[in-house]
Parts: sequence; structure tokens; C-alpha cells
Amino acid sequence: MANIYEKTTTAPVNIAVVKYWGKRDTSLILPTNSSLSVTLSQDQLQSKTTIRVSKDFKATRLWLNGIEETNVENNQRLQACLRATRLLRKEYENSLAISGHVNIPPLSEWNLHICSENNFPTAAGLASSASGFACLVYTLAKLFELPISATDLSRIARQGSGSACRSMFGGFVAWEMGDNTDGSDSQAVQIAPETHWPELEALICVVSDLKKGTSSTEGMQHTVKTSELLQHRISKVVPERMRGIKEAIKTRDFKKFAEITMRDSNQFHAVCVDTFPPIFYMNDVSRAIIRLITEYNNSGDETYKAAYTFDAGPNAVIYAQKENIKEIINLLAHYFPSTLDLNKEYFNDHAGLFSTDEKIGQLNLPRGFNSQVIPVFPAGSVKQVLHTRVGEGPKVLESDGESLLNSAGLPKRLI
Amino acid sequence: MANIYEKTTTAPVNIAVVKYWGKRDTSLILPTNSSLSVTLSQDQLQSKTTIRVSKDFKATRLWLNGIEETNVENNQRLQACLRATRLLRKEYENSLAISGHVNIPPLSEWNLHICSENNFPTAAGLASSASGFACLVYTLAKLFELPISATDLSRIARQGSGSACRSMFGGFVAWEMGDNTDGSDSQAVQIAPETHWPELEALICVVSDLKKGTSSTEGMQHTVKTSELLQHRISKVVPERMRGIKEAIKTRDFKKFAEITMRDSNQFHAVCVDTFPPIFYMNDVSRAIIRLITEYNNSGDETYKAAYTFDAGPNAVIYAQKENIKEIINLLAHYFPSTLDLNKEYFNDHAGLFSTDEKIGQLNLPRGFNSQVIPVFPAGSVKQVLHTRVGEGPKVLESDGESLLNSAGLPKRLI
Repeated sequence: MANIYEKTTTAPVNIAVVKYWGKRDTSLILPTNSSLSVTLSQDQLQSKTTIRVSKDFKATRLWLNGIEETNVENNQRLQACLRATRLLRKEYENSLAISGHVNIPPLSEWNLHICSENNFPTAAGLASSASGFACLVYTLAKLFELPISATDLSRIARQGSGSACRSMFGGFVAWEMGDNTDGSDSQAVQIAPETHWPELEALICVVSDLKKGTSSTEGMQHTVKTSELLQHRISKVVPERMRGIKEAIKTRDFKKFAEITMRDSNQFHAVCVDTFPPIFYMNDVSRAIIRLITEYNNSGDETYKAAYTFDAGPNAVIYAQKENIKEIINLLAHYFPSTLDLNKEYFNDHAGLFSTDEKIGQLNLPRGFNSQVIPVFPAGSVKQVLHTRVGEGPKVLESDGESLLNSAGLPKRLI
Repeated sequence: MANIYEKTTTAPVNIAVVKYWGKRDTSLILPTNSSLSVTLSQDQLQSKTTIRVSKDFKATRLWLNGIEETNVENNQRLQACLRATRLLRKEYENSLAISGHVNIPPLSEWNLHICSENNFPTAAGLASSASGFACLVYTLAKLFELPISATDLSRIARQGSGSACRSMFGGFVAWEMGDNTDGSDSQAVQIAPETHWPELEALICVVSDLKKGTSSTEGMQHTVKTSELLQHRISKVVPERMRGIKEAIKTRDFKKFAEITMRDSNQFHAVCVDTFPPIFYMNDVSRAIIRLITEYNNSGDETYKAAYTFDAGPNAVIYAQKENIKEIINLLAHYFPSTLDLNKEYFNDHAGLFSTDEKIGQLNLPRGFNSQVIPVFPAGSVKQVLHTRVGEGPKVLESDGESLLNSAGLPKRLI
């Protein structure tokens, strides 16, 4: 395998609890406010990327989920990540040469074959650019053997997709917006590892939607240009929430975590509605999920048993602690019944919460729960409920069998 | 008819273009920001009230749309209006006595029979409290022959329902929030009469909705308590918009009027979403109407041919100039078809825009209009489109035949 070097890695999805919405620099991707997210387990959601570098490759090529991307040269965000990692590789090669090493492969000068896949359908509308770019940059770093930290890498991934910088770590991750105009201090830091709060889990409700919403890249800059409320959120609200959510995570205070998470999701969608013309990401099903969770939190003995958050689309992510997950799934399955087999395609019961003969969606309502809070929706309004948990950061897959490329350096799977 | 005195009057509905949302004093009903509205023609929407006062009445009674209100004594808002007008009547009686008049009927001490009706279904979810309380206070003022101005009356109507103060005038009306803690300067003033801008008309889209929304009285105080964005709206945004909309009205600048109207409707709903738990008044149909109007404004040669605004419910009010009304009705009827006869129940063609054999809803799209912007909705998603225009303030109906009470002082119509 002389002149052929290859690495395969995986990277996770992250879901923000204090939202990123707005860039102060659109080419360097510098945000108007800091944000904080939870990295989700790769068992349910991950991107996987194989990159091979070879003297013999005629061009740098990219395949996403089995389809080749044309026009790789003009993909600014991809090129920014390649430029930055190749530059670091070049410096590394020079430093090795200076220190007397010989036959250092000039990987920084060779073409790449990049093959990337997600283990979840893009159709689900789950943000794949974060895990995708994190995986791209992490694979390049390992392939090039770059002697740099995850936080250093996060500044590069940020230039591919802002939220990708947060997928460089597992657990609980802050993207500190930074002050410098060159972006040298706009980077991700880990607030707590994935092992810190094992009771915290997540349910992703895949909500079906007719229309294709505004892309977040486009939408957030409309908000920056036209919302009169955004500046107040940026300067006054978010800094306070960043302090609060870090404290809630450190002390595993679910009540505080839940309240900040729900308030910040609401405010993100509020500034979207204040945008002109307004941007709407949530639909009637999304709002019904909010009412359901609000009623659930007001019922029973304990307040704040669940927290909803919505990104730039109608899907709901519900954070809750282990003890409440089964109850929440039953509520969801009752009000948003499936067209599919409840115990299979609709819900992935990897934790074995339901016995095989047990029907999902049986209501055993908490005390004081008003069952009329929302109507039972038409089957299929929620397509799927994905049960997952806090997970780890990017990792290298050592075994050759994991490669997405065949011996010729072309994808094993093409569409 | 000795010892029997009676008056019948009517009052209009008003639809705000700079929204009132939040009280700084809930008993005096003092708002957190000024607001501005357009008074709509009474030909389509009005409240009508007959009040008789008699020495022989055993109690003060109230009938709303044919149903008697029990517990009149504990209706704080009603009592506030009665107290204020009776006090002024008492002072008037005293002043007449002092100036030597005799046999002045002590109307301030007698019981009242109050009968009020709307010419539009309450089911439509169109704010009837504004026209209702304006009509109540105006009728009392005429019955008691109070020598005071409409602005003075607006301060009394305000204590019945905040927005009622704006229904004391026709045309374009500002509710200046005032500074005094006793509310003595929180009142309505006319910015321009109904004759000022004859080209301006309105379309009210009655949107069907499953759930009963949060009442505005309740909702606005949740926003005051929990929204972190409201204060910025109150202190920074609204004062600027009040200046801007007054200027737009004075100069009949529809573009400016439309942009402020749409932005302020969006921001009102934005602070509702920022409320915790969030309040949602618009549904998927409401949002589709916004997309439709936005696309319409971006098409053709002229920008801003229509302006949407939404109050505390899913119904849309669309302001537009005469020349564009027919085109807008066709767009609405195409994307939101009716289950009813299009040329009758669905749309009130009092202006004769459509010939009897002409089908409403024929699309003749403006240049550049993307017909895929929204799907065609299920029939009945919009129940009715009401065509109306800027209208006059409260008025007295002199003819006895207009009375809602029979000779015994009881409603002619009871349910």
C-alpha cells in the first residue's frame, strides 16, 4: 500500500439547548452568540467517513451517501476545511524534515477520495451537516497525523458548518463565540463528558411536514438583518442562559436544565417569527408536542419531567431522565399514533423498555393530567420516535473492513 | 313614558396595526405600550346596544346576544363602566340643580336594562369585546346626556376592555398609553377620520380552528411575566413604529403602512412564542396566508399590495387598496376553497366586484408569482372572507323601531 494512506472515522450529531442563530462573519462562520449542545449517542445517529489520499488520484473527489458531489472545487466550505488541514499537514511535514526525518509522505500535496455516509435517513430532516463536517475534519486530522487538540480541530470544523464544531466532543459542549475577527477564539470546549449525567436521555420525534423550510444558513442571516428582537437576545439573554445551563449541567439539575432548554427553543423560534418576512419552522404537530410536554410537566408530583427543543424544522427533541422515558413514549404514541408497527419501525426499543407482548401507547396518565389538552392526531403525524442518550465524540475505526472505499479507492456502495 | 328613558346606539370593531399586548395596571387596564388601529365599517361588523333606565326596574340586568348575564353585580369591568358614567351623570344632575333646573330625572340612581347584540357570529372569533364595551359606554353617555368628549369616554371604555377605547372613534385611532398611574392620560385619539383614505379596504379571513386559544386577557399577562423580549419591544420598537405608522397614515403611504403592520403582527406573535409556556395563536392555515401574501407582495410590478395582521386567534385581516382587492380574493378562494357557495356565504360581494356568472377563485397570477408557494388547502380551511373598509365611530339610532327592548323593557329576541 505504498503511496496509499487511508482513515475511517465516525462523528456524532449534537442538539443545541442554547441555540446558535446568526453569524457575525459568514465566511469564517463566526456566530453572534455562544451556544451549548448535547452530543447524542452514535449508536442511533452518526456520520461515517473514509478518506484515502494517494499520489495516483487524479483529482479530489467526494461521495455523500453514495452520490458523487460534482463541483468539489467550488464547494467553499469543503475547501476551507481541506485548506486548513493541508496547511497544518504541510507544516508538520516541514517540521519532521527539519528534525531529520526522511521519506515523509507529502500527503498535503496529494488528492483525496472522500466517502461519507449517515446511518440515518437525510429525509428525517435531522441536522447531518454538523456530524458530516465534524467527521470530515476529524478524519483528515487522523489521516494527516496532525498533532493538535479537538478544540483546535473545532475551529476548522466550524468553517464547514458552524454547529459542526460542537460535534468534536462527546457529552456537553459549549461553542464559545469568541471576540477575535479572525475566529481564532471561536471554538468548542467540553463542559462535561458523556459519562457525567447517565440518567439524561433523549427522544427524537420525526414530524412529517409538507413544505421544505428555509435553510438555516439562509434563515439566520434574514433574522440578523431584519429582526428587531435578535440583538436583545444576543446581548442580554444568551450570556445569562449560558451561565445558567452550564451550572445546571454541572449540578445535574434537570429542572433548571429543562426550563432553560425550553425557553431558549421558544426564543429561537420567536426571533424567527420576528424576522421579516417571518420564518416558521414548527407546524401544528410541533406545537401540539409542546402543549403535551407542558401539560405533562404540570401533572403529577414532580415538575419538569421533560424538556422539548426544536431546531430549524418541525422535529422535536425531548430531553428527559431515564425514569420518565417510558411514560413519555406512551404519551407520544397515544397522541401521535403510527401507521407502522408501534413496537418496531415507529420506536427503537434498544433499552428493552417494553416487553414484546406489551403495546406501546397505553395511557396511564399522571395525576392531574388533562387528557383533552390536545386531540389524538392522524396516524403518521409523527413518523418515528428515536430513543437515544448522551454520547461520545468522534472516533477512529481501525479495522480495514470498516472502510467505505474499495481497493480501487471508489465507494463500495453507490446509488 | 314618564320615568322611562332609553337610548340605542351602535359601535364598530377595530383591528390594530400596532398591537396592544400587556398591561401595566390590570384593574385600570393601563397598557405597557401605545397602539394604533383602524376602525372597520359597521355595515359588516358592529355591536348594537339598547339601554333603558327606569325607576320601576328592580335590578340592573344585562342581555348579550339574547342570553341574560347572571352575576352582573360581580362583573368588575361592567361595574367600572357603570360606576364612572353614573358618577358623571350625578355631577351633571347636581350642576343642573344648582343652576336652577327642576324635575331633573335622577337617572344616576335608577336601575338599567342593558341589551346588546352583534351583527356577526361570536363563533367567528372576531373581537367583540371592543365594540361591545364601546357601545355600552357610548349608550350610557347618550342616555345620561353627559357633556363630555369621545376621548373622555374612551378612558371609561378602556376600563371595560382595553381595545374598546379605540372603538370610540372612526377612521384611524391611536391609544396613547399615558404616564399617569390613575390612567387619566391613557386614552384614544383620532389620527385621521374614516374619509381620509377611501382606497384602503380590508378582508377578514375566518380561519377554522380546533382548539380554543388562550384568552388575550390571560395571555398578555403571561407574556409580561415571562417574555424576556417584551421589554425591548415596549421600550424600543413600539415608540418608533407609532411614529412611523402615523406618518404612513397621514401621507397615505401604503408601502410603509403595510410593512409596519406586518412586522408588528409578526412581533406580537413572536413575543407570544417567547412567553413561557409559549402561546400560539396562528395555525398552519394562518401561516400559509402569510406566505401567500408575502409571495403576492414579491410578485408583479408593485411591492406591498397587501398587509396581513393577526390578533389573538388564527383569523387573518388583510389590508389592501381597492385596486388589488379582487385579485387577493381570487388568490384566497383558490388556495383556501370553500365548502359553501363561493359567491354567497363564502364572500360578501357588497361592492359588486364579481358579476353573478363570474366564478370566484380563478387564478390570473401576477408576473413572477410562484403558484407552488403553498398547497391548495382542504375546503373549509378558511370558512369565510369578509370584505369591509374603514368606517365611522359609534352612532345613535333615533327611531324607536331600532330598540332591542320591548315595551316591558325586556329583550325582543331571546335565545
